[in-house]
This record gives sequence, C-alpha cells and structure tokens, in this order.
Amino acid sequence: MSRAAENRTENLQYITFAREDGKYIGTPVPRTFDGYDKVRGFAEYINDVELPGMLYAYIMRSPISHGIIKRLDYEKLFRRDHVKAIITGKDAGFSNIGPLKDNPPLKYPKIRSIGDEILAVATTDLERVAKDVQEDVEIDYERIDGVFDTEQALRNGAPLVHDETGSNVVKINFNVESGSIDEGFRQSYLIREDEFDIPRVAFAPLGTLGAVATFDESRNLVLISNTQQPFQLKRELAEALNYDPSKIRIVQPYIGGTFGRGMALYPFEVITAALALKTGRPVKILLNRTEDFKFSPTRQPVKIKIKSGVDRDGKMLARDVHAVLDTGAYVSWGAFDARVMASTVTGLYKVSNVRFDAKAVYTNNIYTINMRGAGNPQMDFALESHLDMLADELGMDPLKFRLINSHQGDYLTPQGMFIRNSNLKSALEKAAKAIGWKGPHMVVNHGSKKLGIGFAGLIHVGGGARVYHTDGSGAVVKMDDYANITLFTGISELGQGSIQSLSQIVASEIGVPLSKVNVVYKGDSEFRPWDTATHASRGTFVNGGAAQRAAGKLKAEIIADAAMFFKTDVQDLVIEDGIIKSLSDSSIFLDLGKFIRKMHFSKGGKTYFSYYYFDPDTEMADPKTNKGNISSDYVTGATAALVEVDTETGTVRPLKLVIVNDCGTIINPSGARGQIIGGAIQAIGHTLFEELALQHGEVVNTGFSDYEVPGITEVPEIQVEFIESRSHEGPFGAKGIAEMGIITVSGAINNAVFDATGARLNQLPLWSERVLKEIGKSAAQTKRKK
Amino acid sequence: MSRAAENRTENLQYITFAREDGKYIGTPVPRTFDGYDKVRGFAEYINDVELPGMLYAYIMRSPISHGIIKRLDYEKLFRRDHVKAIITGKDAGFSNIGPLKDNPPLKYPKIRSIGDEILAVATTDLERVAKDVQEDVEIDYERIDGVFDTEQALRNGAPLVHDETGSNVVKINFNVESGSIDEGFRQSYLIREDEFDIPRVAFAPLGTLGAVATFDESRNLVLISNTQQPFQLKRELAEALNYDPSKIRIVQPYIGGTFGRGMALYPFEVITAALALKTGRPVKILLNRTEDFKFSPTRQPVKIKIKSGVDRDGKMLARDVHAVLDTGAYVSWGAFDARVMASTVTGLYKVSNVRFDAKAVYTNNIYTINMRGAGNPQMDFALESHLDMLADELGMDPLKFRLINSHQGDYLTPQGMFIRNSNLKSALEKAAKAIGWKGPHMVVNHGSKKLGIGFAGLIHVGGGARVYHTDGSGAVVKMDDYANITLFTGISELGQGSIQSLSQIVASEIGVPLSKVNVVYKGDSEFRPWDTATHASRGTFVNGGAAQRAAGKLKAEIIADAAMFFKTDVQDLVIEDGIIKSLSDSSIFLDLGKFIRKMHFSKGGKTYFSYYYFDPDTEMADPKTNKGNISSDYVTGATAALVEVDTETGTVRPLKLVIVNDCGTIINPSGARGQIIGGAIQAIGHTLFEELALQHGEVVNTGFSDYEVPGITEVPEIQVEFIESRSHEGPFGAKGIAEMGIITVSGAINNAVFDATGARLNQLPLWSERVLKEIGKSAAQTKRKK
Repeated sequence: MSRAAENRTENLQYITFAREDGKYIGTPVPRTFDGYDKVRGFAEYINDVELPGMLYAYIMRSPISHGIIKRLDYEKLFRRDHVKAIITGKDAGFSNIGPLKDNPPLKYPKIRSIGDEILAVATTDLERVAKDVQEDVEIDYERIDGVFDTEQALRNGAPLVHDETGSNVVKINFNVESGSIDEGFRQSYLIREDEFDIPRVAFAPLGTLGAVATFDESRNLVLISNTQQPFQLKRELAEALNYDPSKIRIVQPYIGGTFGRGMALYPFEVITAALALKTGRPVKILLNRTEDFKFSPTRQPVKIKIKSGVDRDGKMLARDVHAVLDTGAYVSWGAFDARVMASTVTGLYKVSNVRFDAKAVYTNNIYTINMRGAGNPQMDFALESHLDMLADELGMDPLKFRLINSHQGDYLTPQGMFIRNSNLKSALEKAAKAIGWKGPHMVVNHGSKKLGIGFAGLIHVGGGARVYHTDGSGAVVKMDDYANITLFTGISELGQGSIQSLSQIVASEIGVPLSKVNVVYKGDSEFRPWDTATHASRGTFVNGGAAQRAAGKLKAEIIADAAMFFKTDVQDLVIEDGIIKSLSDSSIFLDLGKFIRKMHFSKGGKTYFSYYYFDPDTEMADPKTNKGNISSDYVTGATAALVEVDTETGTVRPLKLVIVNDCGTIINPSGARGQIIGGAIQAIGHTLFEELALQHGEVVNTGFSDYEVPGITEVPEIQVEFIESRSHEGPFGAKGIAEMGIITVSGAINNAVFDATGARLNQLPLWSERVLKEIGKSAAQTKRKK
Repeated sequence: MSRAAENRTENLQYITFAREDGKYIGTPVPRTFDGYDKVRGFAEYINDVELPGMLYAYIMRSPISHGIIKRLDYEKLFRRDHVKAIITGKDAGFSNIGPLKDNPPLKYPKIRSIGDEILAVATTDLERVAKDVQEDVEIDYERIDGVFDTEQALRNGAPLVHDETGSNVVKINFNVESGSIDEGFRQSYLIREDEFDIPRVAFAPLGTLGAVATFDESRNLVLISNTQQPFQLKRELAEALNYDPSKIRIVQPYIGGTFGRGMALYPFEVITAALALKTGRPVKILLNRTEDFKFSPTRQPVKIKIKSGVDRDGKMLARDVHAVLDTGAYVSWGAFDARVMASTVTGLYKVSNVRFDAKAVYTNNIYTINMRGAGNPQMDFALESHLDMLADELGMDPLKFRLINSHQGDYLTPQGMFIRNSNLKSALEKAAKAIGWKGPHMVVNHGSKKLGIGFAGLIHVGGGARVYHTDGSGAVVKMDDYANITLFTGISELGQGSIQSLSQIVASEIGVPLSKVNVVYKGDSEFRPWDTATHASRGTFVNGGAAQRAAGKLKAEIIADAAMFFKTDVQDLVIEDGIIKSLSDSSIFLDLGKFIRKMHFSKGGKTYFSYYYFDPDTEMADPKTNKGNISSDYVTGATAALVEVDTETGTVRPLKLVIVNDCGTIINPSGARGQIIGGAIQAIGHTLFEELALQHGEVVNTGFSDYEVPGITEVPEIQVEFIESRSHEGPFGAKGIAEMGIITVSGAINNAVFDATGARLNQLPLWSERVLKEIGKSAAQTKRKK
C-alpha cells in the first residue's frame, strides 16, 4: 500500500479509541469563546477596523435599472485633494465574478440593475466624496426597458438583461426525473394542481456589509471580510483581480450574522482590494443600513407550480413540480437554490414517480443569493400547503395523509440521496402529540379568534453537502505541557456558536475537562486549516468530524506512549477527566499533564500535535441527472403550529410551535435549541410580515421602519424536540442543525390558518388583508356548499 | 517497536529527502517579514498596546538599599478615585521568583536593593499617582548596612543580603576539574597569574521594559510580554501568582531588543498580572528610559583570577581559574553565567589539567541577568589577555603561541564537550592573514598615534544548549492549494531576523520559490508550537532544524503521493522551483500547486500538513561535575583587531576588526553579517566606554547622556569571515551565530593596545586615563629594563 493510502487507513483506526459517548456530549454549555467579548463590547467587527493611513472607498452606483453608459467623464474629480484613486469598468481590468462569471465588479458600458457599480473612489473624506462625485462626474445613459418579474422576462421579445445569452433564462440544468410521471398520474384517483408565490426577502442581519483591504508585512494583500468561506474567497478574489492567489490572505473579524450571504465574493470587495492595490494604503468600505437594504443581494422570489396524484387511500403516486426563480441581474447562489428545492420535491414523503424542473430567470432586479435553508423554506411551504389541500380534498386527516406517505428507517430518495434512519414519521407523530392534535378543525375557538393546528415535515442535508469538488475540513489539535488543548479550525464563526460544540467534541474525545480546550477560529485563512465553507449546516458535522478525528489521533499516540511507559496494553488504558488510568490495575494512574511533561522534558523529548482532514464519504450530483448522494446524512423532522386567527382583522398569531428534528446526537443542547429557535423566528418573519418590495427594480422599504422583522412580542412558545438517531460519520453521531428551524414554519402556520378558518393562502407573507380576503372566499365557498 | 518509537524513526528518514544544499541557502535575503512594518511605523511594540478600560500599574520602589520595613500604612491611598487596587508584599500572596526562588515580586518586610518593589497601584491617572503615593503612603524602615561589592559581601561578619542563607555566597556548584592542576603546574616551565576586573554594563536596548496583562474571551489571563521564552514564562507566572497555568496565555508584541534580559519573569510582570486579576481590567506598565536604567537587571560584574603553566615550547600544561560574580540582591541567570565561563576556561585552547571555580555573591546592588554571550565575553577577555601576557613573558609570538595550543578537527574538551571539526586554528590563521600580522610590534606607527594588532579566539555553543530538561522546538508546516507554505514556529523574534532564515530553510527543503513561504512567529504561545527559549544562539539551529524536518516530512508525503499519481518511483521525483518532475522522464512534470489541488479537490481529498519536534541529541551537564556535552555543535572562531592608541591622550581607536567564525553553513549571509557586526559594536561599547556605575547600590548614570554606547563614528571597518564546516544536526549544516560577534572583541582590542604601546590593562572599559596610566608604567618598565 502506498504511504498516502496507508496514512488514510491508519487515520481511520484512531477513531476506534473514541468512547461511544463523550463526557460533554449532550451537556448544555454557555458561549465562553465569543460571549464575553460580545457582551462587554470588546468584539471587533468590520465596523471597528481602523488602520493607520486608511482610505475609504466610495462607489458611484447606477440610478437606472437598465441601459448603456454612453459617456463617462470624471476628469474633474482628479482635482479633488481627498481623491486618491479612481477606477471604472473601463480601466479596472477586472474579471467577472459569480458562478457563471456574469457579474463585472465595475459595470461598463451595460447597466443591468439599480445600484450597479460604475465608478469607485478611494478618498480621505467620506463626508465630501458623494457630493463631489455628483458634481464632477458626467455620465450619459441610453435607457433600455427593464424586466422586473420573471413573467415579463420570459415574454417573447423581452429586453435581454445579458445580451449574449439569447434569452433571459439562465443556462443551468435543474431537471430531476424518476419513475414515470405520466404513468403515475394515469393511475391516480385524485390529481390536484396548485401555484404558490413566495416573495423577495432581505437578509438584514445586524452586521451590514463591509470590508477592509490592507497589506501584511510581506506586502500580501489582506482582505478583512465578513465571509463564510475564507478559503474559497482567496481564489475568487485572485481571479477577479487577476492577481496571484499566493499573495492574498483572507481575515475574518467578528461577524454580525450572514445567513448565507457570506458565500460569495462581492463587487465592493473586489473594488476595495483594487483601490488598496492602486494606492498602496488600507481601504475600507462599510454600507450603512439603507445601502445594505438597497444594494445587497436578497433571497430569491420564486413561483412554484405543483401537481400531485394520489390513489384512493391517500398514497402519493406522482408529483410534478416546476419553479421559476428570479435570479436578478446576475447569477449568484440564489439561482442554484433550485437544486435544494429539488431534493425536497423528490425526498419529502415517498413518491416514486417524480419530476422537478426550474427556471432561473434574469431580471433587472437586484441579484439574489442563497439564504438559510437555501430554497428549502420556500419549497417546503409550497409542498406542505399543497399536500394539506390534497388531504382536505381527499377528505383525509392531514396528519394521517402525511404519515401514510412518510418514510421511516433507511430510505433512498428517487434523486439518489440515501437517508439513513429516516425519522420523518416519528417526528410527525411526536409533533402531533406535543401540540395535542385530535383531527382537523378540532381546536376550540373563542369568539372571532379562531384556533387551528397545521403540520409540515422536512428533509435537509445534515452531513455536509458536496456541491464543490471537496466537502472537507481540516483540524489541528495541539497539546501543551499542562494538557491544555488548542484546536485550530477553519470554521467561520458567524454567530452560530459551533466552536463551542467543537470544544465539547475535543474534550470528550481526549478525555480532559472542557475548560482545557481552547479554539482558534477567528482570523486568518493562513493560520487555520482548510474549510470548504460554513454553509449547508455542515460546521459541527464536518469541522467537528475533523476535530474528533484529529483529537482521536492525538489520543491514540498518547495512549501508545503511555502503554510503553506503564508497561501495559493500549487497550488497558483510558483517559478520563485529564487522568490516564489503567482499567485493570487501580495503582496505575497519572495526571495527563504530568505524563505529557515526562514525555517532553527528557532527552529526545516528544510533544503531541495532530492534524486530520475530513472529507465525508459523499458524491457530487451527476451534472446531467442531478442525482447523487451529496450528503453523508440527512435530517428529517416535522413542525406543528398552533395558530390564532382573528377573523375580523385577518391577523395571524402563532401561539405555539413544536419543532421536532432528528439532528443525530445533540452536542450542545442550549446551542442546538438556540439555532432552531433562531431559525423559527426568522421564518415567522418570512411567514407573516417580510417582503422586500421593489418598484421598477428599486427597493422601496430600505430600513427596519419599513421592513418589519419579528420582535420579541411576535415570538410564540417554541418547543424544541430532538430525536437522536446517530449519524454514522458525524462527531459522536451528530448531524447538522443550523437550517432546520427555518424550513417548516411557513407551511405549518399556513396549514394551521386553514385548520382555524378554512382559508387557503398560496402566497407569502400571510398579511392580514390577504388572510381576511381568503376567509371571505372560504366562507362564501362553505355557504355555496351548504 | 512501539508506535511512538516507530514515529520517531520514521520521522528521521524524511530528512534523507533533503538535498545537500538548498536553493536559498547562502543567498542574502532582505527582511521581508518584519521589515515593512518596522520601517513604516506599523509595528506594534508594547508601548503601542492600548486596550479599552485599561489601567496603569504604578510601583512604589524602595529608596534604601538594605533594611526592614517597620511600618507600611497606605489606608489614605484608598480615598483616591483613580486608585482601583493596591497590593503589597503583605497581602499579594505571591510566590518568590527566579531560579533559586529568592526574589519576592513584592518585598516585605526585607528590602535588599534600591528599587525593590514595595507597593503597587492600579490607577487610571498615571500623572497623579506618583505624587499621591508619596503623600499617602507612610513607611518606616530600619536601615541595615549594605554590601556593595563582592569583597565587602564576602568579609567575615558582613551583613547578610538573605538572612536565611548563612553567607552571601550563592549556593550553586560551579566547580569543574579535569586532569591534575598540581601535576600540571609542577611540570611547568613558566607559571603566571593575573587578575581581571570587568564592570557592570547595562542592556539598554531601544525597547524599555514593559508589559500588559489582560484577558481573552475565555477569561484566560493574557500577559503581553517582551519575553524571549513565552513557553517557560507561562509556568513561571503561574507559579508566582499561584494560578492555574492552563488559564494563562503569553503573547509577544514586536520587541525592541532583549539581548538576554527576556529570559526571566520580572516582578513587574507578576504585579501587573495580579492587578489585572484584582481589577478584572487590562493593566499596563511601561518603564521610561530612566527607570529602565535604574531598575532593570544588568550584566554581572565579575572578577577573574587566572593562573597558567606552560612548558618551554609554549604548550599549556595547567590552567586554574576562579571567578567572583556579583549577582546583586537576587539570583537570576546572571549568576549562572559562570557555567558558560567554565566552558571557555576548559575548552578555549587545549589544556588537559584544568580547574575552574566560581562564586556568585549576593550584594545590595540591582540584580543581574545573562547578557548576549552569557559570561563568555568577560571570560574570553580575561583569558585571551592573560594568554597574551604569557606569550610575551615566554618571548613568543602571541599568534604562534595560540596556534600551538589550538585544537583543530574533532576535539573533546576536558569538560566533556565534543567539538566536531574545530576550526580554531584555521580561524586564527585566517584572521591573522586578513589583518596582515607580521609579528609583535611590527605595525608602522606615526607620531604619537601607535598602531597595534591583537588576537582572541573563541569557543561557544552553536547547536543549542541543554540547560533545561528539553532543548527542543516544534515546527508546523501547512501547505495551501497554491503550494504556499505557512511555517508556524515558536521562535521569539527579538530583532535578530532568524525568521527570514527559517523561510529560506523551508523553501529550500521543499523546493518552492522563497516568496511562497510565510512564517507565523509573533503572537500567542497558544498558536505556536513549543520553543524552549530563544537564547544561546539556538534559534536558527533548533527552530530551523525543526522547520527543515517538518518541511522534509511534508515533502516526503507529497513525493510519495506523486509517485503513485505518476506511476513512478519516489527516488525518481524531485520538486524544484515549485514543479514536481521526474529525473528519468522529461515528460513527467507538474506545477506543485496543481498537484496539490488535484489531491485535495477529489473525493476522499487530501491536504498536506506536518509537525516535527526537534530536540538535539545532547545531554545536561552532570550536576556534580558540571561536565557533559550540552550542545550538538560548537562554534570556534577568532578575531584580529587593528587598533590605534593616542599615547598622548590614551584614546583607543579600533581601525579594523577581522572576525572569523565557523558557524557551519551560512543560511542568510546578510543576516549573519548583521548579527556578527551588531555583536561586535556592542562589544566595542563594553570594551571602550560602558560601565554602569553604582554608588551604595544606586545607579549613577541613568540615561544615554551619562551612559555612552557606541555611535556610528565609533564603528571601525569590520570584516566578517566565515569558515563553513557543516553541522551534523543543524538545518543544511548551519550552527548558531547570534552571540559570536560579541565575545572576542574586548580581548583582541586589549591585546592590540599592548602590541601598540606595551601597556597591559586588566580592567574594562579601556578608558583613556587608564590606558594613559598603563602606558606610563610600561614606559617606566622599558626604561628600567634598559
């Protein structure tokens, strides 16, 4: 066997040293790593980064949504003392960015959306620069008609957002098919078709977008970025700047939330870096709240058409789904979320004849990126609402209908995803029991306030997601002479708190008190081992998996040396609470720190240090069929919502959510609960209030006064439950968790509104006027039926 | 074989992959790592560290040199708003510090030297605190007579500095003996005895002493310290504070020179840390220049008595040396320098009957610590001056006398130090040739300015120094997807520039362009692998040795995988300039970055990362005999000085120094030259001007206006020459270099003064009045002889 192959095999065996259950696994742990800094105000966010000699980047953006720049004259701007450099799309020499390389960091001559970057300035005077640019830059446009929704964009002869594409349909194959749709529908007793419309929402995390570009001692370009993928960003920035990637470092400050929008390089980051290169000085850009609302990418609006066929007993025979996504003026990950939608269409409930297709469509709107859940919240809402309607039409209890069609235990989806130990059925049952489900329309009402219960299930990747050639992450474990452990991880800490779980994994794996583990997680891509990205709920699973394996390797080495030292067998030795001890001879025990010092402080001394690169055993989807087992493990789950609807005002008020998920072993119950609750609250916003409104491509609601997100008074009782089936590759059996709270809430609430009022909504958010209108229709129907 | 033993053996084999000579070995390289930051003013020194909520430590110090505190009342000080905490030796609960644990960080009730720390305050108002402490603290002392030189201190009935010791002699065994002194002297034709007196000198680097104590996110205590030994400091600070070492981190900022004084924990560091713990806030202390001169430890004054016996032909038969060191009020490494003196006494020139002994003596002076060369500059001055006198008395050419007694090739010293490939003789010959030596008193004089030439040889550790249980250092080598390498090293960068050499070693070992290597060297003890300390000229040798081995390990892994990939043999593959290529088949070659990406971005992907802990194959000296081979390799060398003496004023002006050393392979010639020249200039100061004068224990010259260090006008032509014998364990054959420039200069200049004028000086510095006096004596003697 080759050395490399040997190493790999050898590494695997270390894991056998891990105990079945670690001491700190399942223990609720507070946030010691970033908590103190954050609550004391010591945490340095991008806002706080100030460097000597620093300049500020100012970007002149397009006020028009579609057109051609005919003249761009900025000669006069050079007179201004505070202007240290000017770049435009004419001269910057950038390469396009984005997965399809259709987004020039500076646009020239074609303008495709309001806010398009036209000219950028490095200035010492951020107060004056906007006025001076306004005065000094002369620009003429030839306007072109814009397309502002997907229907407009798909119309024959519609203006093309990208001239060279021939059509506004983005050329990505999203098609998945299995079995025979036609045959399925032929055999069906009941066929139903529904359409759903989910609007644009804003990310709106506390931390607005921003970056600082500077240089290190060796004149490497250093980009301080709120990214979720520092290791990929290096390559992307190098390509955009046509710069040597070897000379680029990515540094992360504390980050005030990203929720997916940190997955891509931004035009403003390329611009800021270029201005730093041009001036030789640090350059900073920071979007204020209004700019963040107006110019940052959003979740994609999507229209979904679902047609299903069932037999008399409620068994699903066919499902045909088509989605149309508004990708905006450029393609980023917003378009690719159709891939995640596909896995829900094919995998949520058993259906062997299934087809999914989607169109991502260019419009002259701001572009879109993948938000927490990555399309699943939208598809789950549509599919679960549709299934509820189907059950009602069949005259079947919607829970029963779901249970009939649920998978449980090992299940291979028609898309080739292998769900080990599905708990979809158990999760539904558990949620139903906890919410007190007794059947449709059984909740007691009072006056005009009607109560109802609704359900939604989910499947989602929980064991990484191989959407890139590698889905791996490295981990380094270093032990000092006091048996303190430093874990180096490439994970991006965006506020999710997974570093805390990583410390529990390492402490448990080696057998030391939790306080002995420190984690190096912030800062420089150069210091830390590779991480593919912190996305797809993979942090604890992949980075944690790497951490456990690196820790296991280190422990195996200690145990081997200790066995020599104590003249006993490796199988006879354990490490518990920082003590090495023999299982067979109670006289053999030694403080781990003492043992480490013994090994270190002698001739030919030894120290303990280990590295592991964990790339889960998964495959990329086939580019033709879009099938493949992209995740090592999947999460199944279900939510039940108890909702109160005021039939006089149409106001929907969730009273209680029961959210049940099988996220495998729970490492840190308080962190896990926090993740689920956080996602659920975000989903409540998307379900009840949030829509980022655009008029002719221009954002209308540009701040928290116009764009309502849930406040504490909108948060109902949330009961978080876990079913803990063990993941086969995850650390101590854990799976991912970060996205699971956001997926099911819209569907469950929408179905509860029906249960309460008989009103069916096919559109989010569930604004009171919409609900009121549908209550009216439902009442009319009921009357008619009578 | 056990796994651990296997690992060790396996690791060794990687080294065979290293080419004989690396591409960048011997290439002069500028300081890219710290240079830019330093010249642009971006480098953050301890002075620059400011933290939110930071307090300042103020220390009330003893104005008396010896006494007992009878009353200490500071109740009134609590009224001051700016005073946030007060600690004294009564209540601080500190443990003593220093190698003999005789130094309480806060003194109570015994005071042993001026400047002793009595009371410390954490304050927000550094302007007012001194005046307020003066006003509010009431203190009464009972004064005790002080002892201010070693003679006083050794007198019968002298006041004891430490009551409990019974005598002022420090209880450390320095005795080394080999052969028979008595027999040697019995056989001697000529016996001569001389006494030498070397005064106290100040370290006076540009960076004054200071520290900041603060907390990290996990409430670990973080000490930001100008230390040379972050990994040991952690333990020392923990012991002093009686605090869990697991909860302490040591961070180094940029450091403005230490020259040995960073080898120990300071009372002010313990105090600052304690005030931070007491207040929960960051606390800073920074000594100003005056305080740095008055209260920081110095090089130890030493008196040396040498008796030698030679046969008629000049062969040395016996040497008996006794040294008395003023350790000051407390024992730090200043006392232990007698150990280094011993190795010069026993190893510089061949002498089989040899004895060395020393007394380190407590006085009421400020305490002393090891300065660059660690005692060797003083002993070398004394021994080389004495040998010159002996040659003169024998009527023998002093160069010839040295050559007769020089070792060359492998030589085991009577103290058990194994010098591989001594080049002592070659170095003397090379220096003599370069300076133009034609024999004694042969340099042409002009008028009252007399010219003369003098010599001094040296031996010094050049392969680490096992003075601690481990002499090891770790290195981590991480490769990214562009074949960029990050080296993590524990080395302390004090200005010496060895990180630059480390980058050359790694680039050469792996076979990539130098610009591809970055070094992580500053910052946190937690991030970096263990380093015993940056002292004893061991940085490039041990840290560089670890770096080469870690790099070799990584390369071996790459080559093994590449051999599989190319279906060829590991012996057939090399990496050159970042290209993997076959030696036998010119069609086989691939960019290293591409190969790394191929291995990484595929299923079951692999990344490259390695660690090596290098602990040289040496032994600790036997505590009874003080014998042992403490270093893996030794440096031999010689200096020739051409000096002009103004016989009317006594002014000594060095015109040229030729400094020849065998430091093994030279990694970075410009860095190596810089180290030698820097040391030589320091030595010129010690030889000609510098003496830190104390009166009754109080420093008299407290600034650069009173304490003269060499300026650029005092620097003569310095010709640096290397003889490059290869070290067997050092990276690419390199040995240590940092101390070699400072050792021989005093002796060579002193002997040149004699050659020029006939004047013999037994005391440093060679002030003009002293020279003039000795010229007078010498003239009188010459007259008498005539």
